[in-house]
Amino acid sequence: MNKDDLASIVTKITNIPWNARNVERVLSALLVSSNFWDIVSFSFEPLPAVAAVLRTLAEEGIVFFSELGVELTDRGRRFIEREKIFPLHSHACPRCEGRTVVIDEFQEAFGKFAKIQLDRPEAIIKFDQGYVTPDTTFARIALADSRGDLRGKRALVLGDDDLVGIALGLTGLVEDIVVLELDERIIDFEQRVASQYSLPLKALKHDLRKPLPEELLGSFDVFFCDPPETVEALDAFVGRGVVGLKGLGGAGYFGITHAESSFYKWRLLEMALLQRGLVISDIITDFNVYMNWEYVDEMLAWDLAPVKQPPHRNWYKSSMIRVEVVEKVEVPNEDLTDRDIYNDPESSTT
Amino acid sequence: MNKDDLASIVTKITNIPWNARNVERVLSALLVSSNFWDIVSFSFEPLPAVAAVLRTLAEEGIVFFSELGVELTDRGRRFIEREKIFPLHSHACPRCEGRTVVIDEFQEAFGKFAKIQLDRPEAIIKFDQGYVTPDTTFARIALADSRGDLRGKRALVLGDDDLVGIALGLTGLVEDIVVLELDERIIDFEQRVASQYSLPLKALKHDLRKPLPEELLGSFDVFFCDPPETVEALDAFVGRGVVGLKGLGGAGYFGITHAESSFYKWRLLEMALLQRGLVISDIITDFNVYMNWEYVDEMLAWDLAPVKQPPHRNWYKSSMIRVEVVEKVEVPNEDLTDRDIYNDPESSTT
Repeated sequence: MNKDDLASIVTKITNIPWNARNVERVLSALLVSSNFWDIVSFSFEPLPAVAAVLRTLAEEGIVFFSELGVELTDRGRRFIEREKIFPLHSHACPRCEGRTVVIDEFQEAFGKFAKIQLDRPEAIIKFDQGYVTPDTTFARIALADSRGDLRGKRALVLGDDDLVGIALGLTGLVEDIVVLELDERIIDFEQRVASQYSLPLKALKHDLRKPLPEELLGSFDVFFCDPPETVEALDAFVGRGVVGLKGLGGAGYFGITHAESSFYKWRLLEMALLQRGLVISDIITDFNVYMNWEYVDEMLAWDLAPVKQPPHRNWYKSSMIRVEVVEKVEVPNEDLTDRDIYNDPESSTT
Repeated sequence: MNKDDLASIVTKITNIPWNARNVERVLSALLVSSNFWDIVSFSFEPLPAVAAVLRTLAEEGIVFFSELGVELTDRGRRFIEREKIFPLHSHACPRCEGRTVVIDEFQEAFGKFAKIQLDRPEAIIKFDQGYVTPDTTFARIALADSRGDLRGKRALVLGDDDLVGIALGLTGLVEDIVVLELDERIIDFEQRVASQYSLPLKALKHDLRKPLPEELLGSFDVFFCDPPETVEALDAFVGRGVVGLKGLGGAGYFGITHAESSFYKWRLLEMALLQRGLVISDIITDFNVYMNWEYVDEMLAWDLAPVKQPPHRNWYKSSMIRVEVVEKVEVPNEDLTDRDIYNDPESSTT
């Protein structure tokens, strides 16, 4: 049994295209932590594939599961040596946590935000929620400001678990903000905060599977969203952002994870973006860090996990993607309500 | 005259597809610095287009050229206000300079490298050279190590103005390094250093327009290169790296600038990469910082510059791109010696 064999088995079990390198990444990750959620995070591989390879390694006597999580057997240690696997070694900047930008200039807005978000609605599985750390939310703003996408501009936020709309409002950089959101708890919360702090923000109830409302088409300079990661859903959600933009030169920000999207699928996602007339100008790994959410044991991911241990740090991360419209392409704005676009073999947290 | 008009004029003069947003970026940059080279750097736009828009703005009485560089007229200040242009505001992390990684763990190797590179051959225009700061070279290694691309691996360096081969050798992370280089001064230098410091490095004379030598095909885990930026040349040079890789899961690192490639062209470059079976996993803006080179006044860029002032800081930067092979695609390894693949309307430093 070598890495190639393991990759084939994983592909057979999960339908996720894998090669020896993907296996290697999981092994490098488990040399750094025995916690299952850490291993997913450090491997940059889709959770169902990580679960499948760990179960297979256990059957082969290379790892075993304990209350500590995933541990190497003696046989496993020899395997690691023979296959020349090294522990993953991160050199991420301790100051910006690998995000490229710092939020120092937003201290005042950040202070207000930190207090405001204490009363935020909790994430619920019904809306496929899960929100990022306040640092992440503000880092997005620092990044967008560094790219000239905010000052004097109009911003559209498509789904706002992360309260990007509020943070944008508090920094006072954009001219106005429209938030579209399905969860009335978030709409009420953002409206209340907006009126209390006099933010130029309007939060509207809207199901993103529905076409973008006529009056919002072609109106914005920048959009933020956090799309589901099937090729079809990402294409559709980013497409909603694009039809909301004024046109050439408009920009969009969203995350893509490795936990739900293999490198193989990433390429397909990138193709879909380019086909929409977009250029990808930035991809910043592990930029978005999600708070551990309360419904962890209700997810498919929990069933898949070979050891039922809770995450012990924020493990769910995504790369920050910035796109910009460089070619005018007709982007559809169709109704997707009756299509199942949310699930593929790589998803596990919805 | 508005931003759209200016964009059309630039496209007519330079053949570079531009829109109002591109114009805006130049204006935002000139609100931050009057130095022409800074304006190119901060605008993230191709130098010939920046030069063309500045000349047009001068004809319109919006800017004027002085010994300080590019300055706004009174009319220009009103234009800026009417068009709602804001100065570009960077939040780049002061610790890693926006690179996401730090080189703290390589202090010893870096110290040796800093001394070694004092004797390096100077960049010459004949070989389209220009090399990065020592910090940049080591940051590349920190990034590649953070992605698991070095330990126990074989590295191929295609063209090595930047002395990546030496830095890799000094860190002791990879198993071995092959450098292909046209400039015999660099080959001699690297061979001498390799033998003096017992580095596992071989530097071979090779013209990258020629096919990769048979014995190097399918041999490496990772490649580094610094390709010219026409679509054809980037495709060909990255292709050389790809045919040097063992196959699926192999990784490549290279830079793409904004000074030589518009966002419009970036999209075409990205399409070419995806078509080679690669996924783009990272794009880190301004990661690679080049030392100002001595032949600045021999470049086309100097002729294009509307003011003949020297750069007063390192202005030439590129985004770091990491790609990984996720699909086996037949990549050609053909001879390009007799084709002019180095120039397009956006190039100016070759």
